[in-house]
Amino acid sequence: MTQHPTAATRRPANRGPKAAAGNRAALISAAREIYASQGLDAPLSTIARRAGVGQAVLYRHFPDRDAIAAAVLEENVRQIERAAAEGSALAEVLGVLTWHLARSAAFISLLHADEASGHPRHTRAFARDMHDRVEHALRECLPDGHRLGGPDDLMLAVSMVSGAVGGPTHAQREHRALAAWGLLGVTVGPVRPLRD
Amino acid sequence: MTQHPTAATRRPANRGPKAAAGNRAALISAAREIYASQGLDAPLSTIARRAGVGQAVLYRHFPDRDAIAAAVLEENVRQIERAAAEGSALAEVLGVLTWHLARSAAFISLLHADEASGHPRHTRAFARDMHDRVEHALRECLPDGHRLGGPDDLMLAVSMVSGAVGGPTHAQREHRALAAWGLLGVTVGPVRPLRD
Repeated sequence: MTQHPTAATRRPANRGPKAAAGNRAALISAAREIYASQGLDAPLSTIARRAGVGQAVLYRHFPDRDAIAAAVLEENVRQIERAAAEGSALAEVLGVLTWHLARSAAFISLLHADEASGHPRHTRAFARDMHDRVEHALRECLPDGHRLGGPDDLMLAVSMVSGAVGGPTHAQREHRALAAWGLLGVTVGPVRPLRD
Repeated sequence: MTQHPTAATRRPANRGPKAAAGNRAALISAAREIYASQGLDAPLSTIARRAGVGQAVLYRHFPDRDAIAAAVLEENVRQIERAAAEGSALAEVLGVLTWHLARSAAFISLLHADEASGHPRHTRAFARDMHDRVEHALRECLPDGHRLGGPDDLMLAVSMVSGAVGGPTHAQREHRALAAWGLLGVTVGPVRPLRD
C-alpha cells in the first residue's frame, strides 16, 4: 500500500497522479495545522514547507489563499459526511465534528452562516452550503427520539457548542466543547479525525 | 419626579448636574440603539443626534469612541447586577441578560473573554472584569440544585447561548437565544431591559 504523506513527514517532490493526490492531501493537512496555530493569514510558504513541497506545487493545486482555505473546510465537511455515510452512530460523527471545531476558527464561523452577513455573497453561499451539508449528514444518523430531534435543534446545538469553544490550546478547546455537549445532555464519542 | 429623557425623545440642551446625568443616560441609550443597528463604527454625530444633544455635550461625557462603547457595556453589566441585587429570580436576570445579548454583538464578545486573545491587554482585562461581574451576579441568584450549578456551568451556558444568537433582527436574535436556553433546559423570564 502507498504510504500517504502526513504533515509531519518531510518528503521529496515526486511525480505522477498518485503523487499529485498525495501532495494535495499533504497540503490540506499542513494548512489545517498551520491555520490552527497561526490563523488564516499564515504565509503560504509556511504551509508548503510543512507539507514538504515547493511553493510551485502549492500554487499548482491552489491558485490563491482562498482556494486552500476552502479546501480545508471542504475536507472538514467531507469527513463528517463520510463518517455519517459509513453508518457511524451520531456520537461518533459528533466526535469528528468536535475534533474539527476545536482546530478551526474558520470552521466555526462557517457553521454560523446566518451571522456571516457582513461577508460577500459568494462567501455566504459557500458557508450556507457547508452548513446544510453538515446538517444533512448529522440528520442521517440521528436516532428517533433523540433530544436534538426538533426541526432546528441539531444545528442550534452545533452553534451553541461552537460559541463555547475557546482557549489557547486544542486541549482546552476540546475540553470546552465536550463540557458544552455535556451541558446539552448529548453524548459524544472519541474526539478524533476520521482515519482513512 | 424628574422625567428621564429617553433615546426616543428629542430634548433641548439644558444645564445643571441633573441635566448632565440625563444627557449621559440619553447618550448611552442612543449609543446602544445605534450600535445595534449600525455596528460599533457608527458616527458619533449620529449618536449625539439620536440623544438630542450637541456633539460638544457628547465629547464632554465621552472623550473618544472607546469611552462611549465601554459605557454601554458597563451599563449592560450594571443592569444585570442590579437585577440580581434586587433579589430577582435567576430566570428574571437571565431575561435581562438575554435582552442585552440580542442587542449587542460587543456584549457577546465581551462574555467570550477567553477568545479575545487577539485584543490588547487592557481590552482583555476589561472583558475579563465584565465577564466576572456577570458571573458573580448570576451566581448570587442561582438556586441550590439548579442544573447550571457546576463550577463552570453558568458562564459556559452563557457563552453557548451567545454563540447561538444570530440573525438580522432583534426578534430573530431573541428567538434563537430563547431556543438555546430551552435546549439547555433553562427557564428564562421576560426578555426586557431593567426598568428604573
